[in-house]
Amino acid sequence: MEAMRFAQGVLEVLDQRLLPFEVRYLEVRDARAARDAIAEMAVRGAPAIGLCAAYAVALACREAASSQDPRATLQELLREISGARPTAVNLRYEVERAERALPAAPDAWYAAALAHAEARRADQQAEDASIARHARELFRPGMRVLTHCNTGGLATGGSGTALGAIIAAHREFGLRDVLADETRPRLQGARLTAYELGHAGVPYHVIVDGAAAHFMARGEVDLVIVGADRVGEDGRTANKIGTYMLAVLARHHDIPFVVAAPRSSCDPAWRGTGEIEIEQRSPEEVLSPLGSRFAAQGASAYNPAFDVTPGGLVSAIVREDGLYRPPFRFS
Amino acid sequence: MEAMRFAQGVLEVLDQRLLPFEVRYLEVRDARAARDAIAEMAVRGAPAIGLCAAYAVALACREAASSQDPRATLQELLREISGARPTAVNLRYEVERAERALPAAPDAWYAAALAHAEARRADQQAEDASIARHARELFRPGMRVLTHCNTGGLATGGSGTALGAIIAAHREFGLRDVLADETRPRLQGARLTAYELGHAGVPYHVIVDGAAAHFMARGEVDLVIVGADRVGEDGRTANKIGTYMLAVLARHHDIPFVVAAPRSSCDPAWRGTGEIEIEQRSPEEVLSPLGSRFAAQGASAYNPAFDVTPGGLVSAIVREDGLYRPPFRFS
Repeated sequence: MEAMRFAQGVLEVLDQRLLPFEVRYLEVRDARAARDAIAEMAVRGAPAIGLCAAYAVALACREAASSQDPRATLQELLREISGARPTAVNLRYEVERAERALPAAPDAWYAAALAHAEARRADQQAEDASIARHARELFRPGMRVLTHCNTGGLATGGSGTALGAIIAAHREFGLRDVLADETRPRLQGARLTAYELGHAGVPYHVIVDGAAAHFMARGEVDLVIVGADRVGEDGRTANKIGTYMLAVLARHHDIPFVVAAPRSSCDPAWRGTGEIEIEQRSPEEVLSPLGSRFAAQGASAYNPAFDVTPGGLVSAIVREDGLYRPPFRFS
Repeated sequence: MEAMRFAQGVLEVLDQRLLPFEVRYLEVRDARAARDAIAEMAVRGAPAIGLCAAYAVALACREAASSQDPRATLQELLREISGARPTAVNLRYEVERAERALPAAPDAWYAAALAHAEARRADQQAEDASIARHARELFRPGMRVLTHCNTGGLATGGSGTALGAIIAAHREFGLRDVLADETRPRLQGARLTAYELGHAGVPYHVIVDGAAAHFMARGEVDLVIVGADRVGEDGRTANKIGTYMLAVLARHHDIPFVVAAPRSSCDPAWRGTGEIEIEQRSPEEVLSPLGSRFAAQGASAYNPAFDVTPGGLVSAIVREDGLYRPPFRFS
């Protein structure tokens, strides 16, 4: 199942909010609809967001070329696409990269941007395969691996980052068990990762996020591997809320904590005392998950969507260009 | 709102599974129904379970006295009550204590057991007040406190343990914020703690369990205080799944991690290499919280209900008889 596909001028985006119960593709016909699909998390996962952004640029080019002031229209639409979500760097990275690939004449923009997006999809497929290959040395037969959120084929244009590596390792070595954090508030682990692992025939168990420490203390976790929304110069990693918790717990229990992400998730400008914006999403995601209300009306909640893990807690970073060990220096 | 009340021969147990949306009391007329109310978590919270058990013993006495073999019947019913849930020590503690309070003549059992249960309720009220008093020195004006699960008036026969202390501290000092872990899988934090804090006028925010580390790293948590289902000789603490995570995270961030529990939750026999049974509940609690299905049919899950925090990670233990600092030696 592909996270998105493009046919006959329409971007079809798999609505991941409905998974695992319904497979439905949204028909995205213009740049603002693509922006909404990202902002409302029909598509999620940093690389998939980036790929969707590349297609959104193509849609923006088509609209802009037929407007009165193509360049101004394009700039406005690209600004809107880039602002759909603040934390994952892939979004801005892919918009800027797509923009740089545009020819001079507005009439030629759309075809060029579309070809660029298709090329980026092929790139992601190759990147994911390389990540899985470089991650290979982290795995052993019979391992018990813990992961967070969803970083499989649904999260990229390819086979996935951390989860892609887990599935490849299972095929090669045979893993004993994968513990999938359910990943509140949006339950990408319970909904998406469980679905992908089940389809791939990998033995797994969903656990609540608060149970990870318990299994680590019992010696039932050999490796933690997660994805990233942004990796800074020194390996600091912004990823789904709950990731930093795992990094601290893994360190306490002397378990390797590994980040798998493509270079497009790396932001060497994020360094020193620099801070990035942590997206704050609606309290309703906490209080009424998937529309099921659990807390009293009027209850208050905080809902930071991401957290930041210092590079010092990261045992290794796997990118398409290799496996890196600390100290990290990405430029 | 009381977790239970006894009137005209009937034990009325607040069905906490329906909170915060519905206030309904189950009418519990015999020992097995009381056992079911505990096993199915209509009543929860270690002290409240213990109190319910004391009333259940009274119901068992009434049934036993009119049976052919009162002593054998009573033993069988007490065994069933004690086995309702395995991890909280209060359950067995209160059953044994109630049994010791019985007079010789079966005809006198019921009245004696009922008077004993009422006395235990009064004891818990006094214990909770003492716990709040001894916990006072842990709090400062404007503090930001993090707690887990529900340990308020719904969890005991009195005003609560950890949450009771938080509410008392807010009344005295004024707290800045209470972060309430939602406490998956059964969401006692989002459902019950948010409800109690809201009614008490304490500023609070529900967070997903995986976000606790994020707020600690930002310096937004000054104190972690939780309850306990069992405290061992050296301070090791069995409590709701997710508690051990908080203890590790608090240590990493140099934040005090405090356990508040009555002496009836202490089990000095739990020491050395001794292990206690960790209740494994249905995977459906993880996959279909409160009946809302989030994961694909056929998904697998682990659902340990409790975890164990080593005494070495506990900064202080508050009981009705004082505030204890490490090293702990409870006998």
